[in-house]
Amino acid sequence: MEVRLAKNYGFCFGVKRAIKIAQDHKDSITLGPLIHNAKEIARLKRDFNVDLSEDLENLESGRKLIVRTHGIPKKDLQRLQDQHFEVIDATCPFVRKPQMIVEEMSKEGYQIIVFGDKEHPEVKGVVSYAQNGAHIIAGLEDLESLKLHKKITLISQTTKQPEIFAKIAGYLSMRVAEVRVFNTICNATFDNQSAADSLSKEVDIMIVVGGKNSSNTKQLLYICEKNCVSYLIEDEQELQKEWFKDKKVCGITAGASTPDWIITKVCQKIMSY
Amino acid sequence: MEVRLAKNYGFCFGVKRAIKIAQDHKDSITLGPLIHNAKEIARLKRDFNVDLSEDLENLESGRKLIVRTHGIPKKDLQRLQDQHFEVIDATCPFVRKPQMIVEEMSKEGYQIIVFGDKEHPEVKGVVSYAQNGAHIIAGLEDLESLKLHKKITLISQTTKQPEIFAKIAGYLSMRVAEVRVFNTICNATFDNQSAADSLSKEVDIMIVVGGKNSSNTKQLLYICEKNCVSYLIEDEQELQKEWFKDKKVCGITAGASTPDWIITKVCQKIMSY
Repeated sequence: MEVRLAKNYGFCFGVKRAIKIAQDHKDSITLGPLIHNAKEIARLKRDFNVDLSEDLENLESGRKLIVRTHGIPKKDLQRLQDQHFEVIDATCPFVRKPQMIVEEMSKEGYQIIVFGDKEHPEVKGVVSYAQNGAHIIAGLEDLESLKLHKKITLISQTTKQPEIFAKIAGYLSMRVAEVRVFNTICNATFDNQSAADSLSKEVDIMIVVGGKNSSNTKQLLYICEKNCVSYLIEDEQELQKEWFKDKKVCGITAGASTPDWIITKVCQKIMSY
Repeated sequence: MEVRLAKNYGFCFGVKRAIKIAQDHKDSITLGPLIHNAKEIARLKRDFNVDLSEDLENLESGRKLIVRTHGIPKKDLQRLQDQHFEVIDATCPFVRKPQMIVEEMSKEGYQIIVFGDKEHPEVKGVVSYAQNGAHIIAGLEDLESLKLHKKITLISQTTKQPEIFAKIAGYLSMRVAEVRVFNTICNATFDNQSAADSLSKEVDIMIVVGGKNSSNTKQLLYICEKNCVSYLIEDEQELQKEWFKDKKVCGITAGASTPDWIITKVCQKIMSY
């Protein structure tokens, strides 16, 4: 089986940075998964004794805490600092930026609209910086029932699709006096998406490698599925040989939280078919 | 012939205000046509001795000057004030607003993009308030060759179509870090356009009454032409009976600079067919 890698895939700047921070702080605890990739988290535990806690209540005192790439809500950060934990911030700078925008714009009286997934930790963190709350919308359809103010600030979760973001910006610009649009979509995500789109048009099957709870990985799958048969796997063990029957060329892409060592294993196994 | 008037048509707030200002200042001179309607300008001359000058050079001293609804470039206004003319500002408040936005946003370092017609006096006036110039675009196609800065302010000529403005806002929001969109399209224009669109879908022929050099009147014609046979006329004398052959219902709309007394004459003539 011939295998082609997307021009851009895998780890982004923020993830590489967070992993380096974790490796530099052995025996620390990350608040929630550092990145959305279970295998990489297992490696950090095994090689660097970096633990994971989903719970802010029963943290072992004396251990350093790492804020993950997606950030955490403002009040949680404040509470941990009040409890004199040493907090190391591995929030991606591209996530920190919308947090700051939301804080500043809500102070200036703008209604805050966030294009993102309500349940995503990044979005929960970002909206926590709004003084008077924020509206999270999954798409244009959520705007129709929303009472719009005259002045709106629009931002996006870093991993959403630019085309839908543009439609939301256009919709708002027709309906309110001022809409201040901050494009907080991450270039890395955009580059991975664009490369996945191109590659999936020229192959018979696409394999997307990444965490099943990773937003940007799911976006990649969604894009590839439009062009060819596509599967999302977390590692090479999930590959099923029958997917590749009668296929000649397989494209591979990977989410921003997928380490190279997993992608390499996936490639090798597919090439052996 | 049955005649139906659009739900909204004709004079807007800014035009009514400017005409009242002119009537209140007999013997004054307007700088350029007060509104884009030659018949109304002739009436103001006849009944109130309000003259018109296109030339700032040879103005008769001692006469009051009226700045028309579309405004004038900042440096022209300054020069007249320096020459101690009494200048009465009939600039529409909805045109004054984008002038102020452009002035403030260009001071804050935003690149200024104006969706409008390069040759329109309103646009010439508005862009004159930009500290370092502004880009005037007629549509999306003009953006492709433009070097975009990171921070952009987008405004519109008051009489442009909201749908295209929204597309421009969407395009920019995908490509730059921040785009601050001020919707400076006038509601009156929008209401007239929307009413013309509805009416032209239910009649056999549309008559658009207005100045042939009036931007908003031409927009109305453009909208109506999509739905039925449509003609732009300046007054009832331009009507041609053969247009109405085999037609049952005629819709009428009028640009924002068209006085009611002209529309009434047009209606009466069509009803007589």
